[in-house]
Amino acid sequence: MANRITTLFNIQLPIVQAGMVWASGWKLASAVSNAGGLGLIGAGSMHPEVLQEHITKCKAATSKPFGVNLPLLYPEIDKHIAIIIAEKIPIVFTSAGNPKTYTAILKAHGIVVVHVVSSSKFALKAQEAGCDAVVAEGFEAGGHNGIEETTTMVLVPAVAKAVNIPIIAAGGIATGRQMLAAMVLGAEAVQIGSRFVCTPEASSHSMFKQAVIKAEEGDTCLQMKRLVPVRLLRNQFSEDMKFGEEQGLSVSYMKNKLGKGRAKKGMFEGDLIEGELEIGQVSALIDAIKPAAEVVQEIWQAYNEVKAQL
Amino acid sequence: MANRITTLFNIQLPIVQAGMVWASGWKLASAVSNAGGLGLIGAGSMHPEVLQEHITKCKAATSKPFGVNLPLLYPEIDKHIAIIIAEKIPIVFTSAGNPKTYTAILKAHGIVVVHVVSSSKFALKAQEAGCDAVVAEGFEAGGHNGIEETTTMVLVPAVAKAVNIPIIAAGGIATGRQMLAAMVLGAEAVQIGSRFVCTPEASSHSMFKQAVIKAEEGDTCLQMKRLVPVRLLRNQFSEDMKFGEEQGLSVSYMKNKLGKGRAKKGMFEGDLIEGELEIGQVSALIDAIKPAAEVVQEIWQAYNEVKAQL
Repeated sequence: MANRITTLFNIQLPIVQAGMVWASGWKLASAVSNAGGLGLIGAGSMHPEVLQEHITKCKAATSKPFGVNLPLLYPEIDKHIAIIIAEKIPIVFTSAGNPKTYTAILKAHGIVVVHVVSSSKFALKAQEAGCDAVVAEGFEAGGHNGIEETTTMVLVPAVAKAVNIPIIAAGGIATGRQMLAAMVLGAEAVQIGSRFVCTPEASSHSMFKQAVIKAEEGDTCLQMKRLVPVRLLRNQFSEDMKFGEEQGLSVSYMKNKLGKGRAKKGMFEGDLIEGELEIGQVSALIDAIKPAAEVVQEIWQAYNEVKAQL
Repeated sequence: MANRITTLFNIQLPIVQAGMVWASGWKLASAVSNAGGLGLIGAGSMHPEVLQEHITKCKAATSKPFGVNLPLLYPEIDKHIAIIIAEKIPIVFTSAGNPKTYTAILKAHGIVVVHVVSSSKFALKAQEAGCDAVVAEGFEAGGHNGIEETTTMVLVPAVAKAVNIPIIAAGGIATGRQMLAAMVLGAEAVQIGSRFVCTPEASSHSMFKQAVIKAEEGDTCLQMKRLVPVRLLRNQFSEDMKFGEEQGLSVSYMKNKLGKGRAKKGMFEGDLIEGELEIGQVSALIDAIKPAAEVVQEIWQAYNEVKAQL
């Protein structure tokens, strides 16, 4: 398998493991890269010294390329960028911000830059900013989400119509069938998050992993639409947020109720009641914890089997 | 092309034209059936005598099989069912209600029954009720929508895991690529709505058709979540509904504000401001009015081209 994405990243399989807060450290990223995909360290939940440590450990654990996912609204972003440049990280995925701000700096250091978008309008902006590829992430995805609520089925062809740079599809992808569907829609790779949360290598709390495995259809919801829309598992916290929205409570009340550290509390500390549990709709189709390498192999094998049967 | 759906319906191509209020009368249904797909008369916006007239005209316009879509909550449903049985309609798609109530009666008259579902739980109920197939309709679809908000990308594989009867995928499908993606996900046919609204044969108002063609990503939204969730084009009416939801206004206020005849006002009478304009997210990818037969042929040709290139 060779296409613009495998060539761009110098990887064997067009499977990217999403950079996720409180889940994707060096263990997960190196396991996915060693399995032939692209592993990403999720810098969004790391202080600079923690990111530095994960990069050092990831380099020791794999000789294959890996990348860093960088939410552009992160307060210590300049320190993160300095570390990424100093460590000669080959690939950076940026999200949640304007791609104009940092793409040129990163590219000047020879770094491949990919931006995560939820609309073809933003995809076009990413292309104009010089990004090498975009992740087109649909409404079904876990975590931060676009306000347009466009699903992967509609978003990927729309983005493919708008830009020339290659597209990585995200949102609702955990199986070989879903990967093939995404490729048919116009993607040249897939970014997979939820499925990789349910691996021993993910740093997420085991209680959270078990909750993801148990999740059924309708167990995730999009909340905090007036703050930053986030898809998460339904629990007491999501119900509180839903109540606030339905009652038309103010944004400042909602922000105060959200407070600080909700995501860490849920996904890292395992508080299934009051924590924020970011995960995608596809959690309904995930029912076992498996090593990351096995996940990659299973998806790739099923992808090829379904393709051969067409 | 032969599979369980083409055999069940005795049709040439696994393409079903959705039964849509104020859009799919005898002209559209017969055109799609004549083109080798399955046309459906949308009974939800028809009084019994109107349905009778459309069936008579449809029979005169095609010798191929066509069906009727029947929302089970329709007030004059018993009259509709009597007409369908008397006219020996071979296929009925039921939606928005319990499949237990009417499936046995219809099947006793040799009618093929398909139920529209938004979750695998409801798909299983439809199978248990004796339905021959299900339409698995994702969050991106226009019109009435499930409360779980599960997208086509996740719903189709979930339903395929739950039931043995064949699946028709709906929601976000207007092109051959999207059709192939849906088939890859586990469907044996697709149901297409929005694309067929933009045909000369659709009885929708021309102003509505033009608005659909102009629609871009993010121009539809899911509203009335506390009444019956409906996906529609953003306009003054949808904004009023959104305001009501955001302010936490009561369900009875919302019902009163909705009033009667909103859908007719919008889609049939062309009131783009105060009318209810039901359409799917895929409207973003539709940019021309074309005869229904041409739509069917284009989708089928692209489907085969993309498949051949895999």
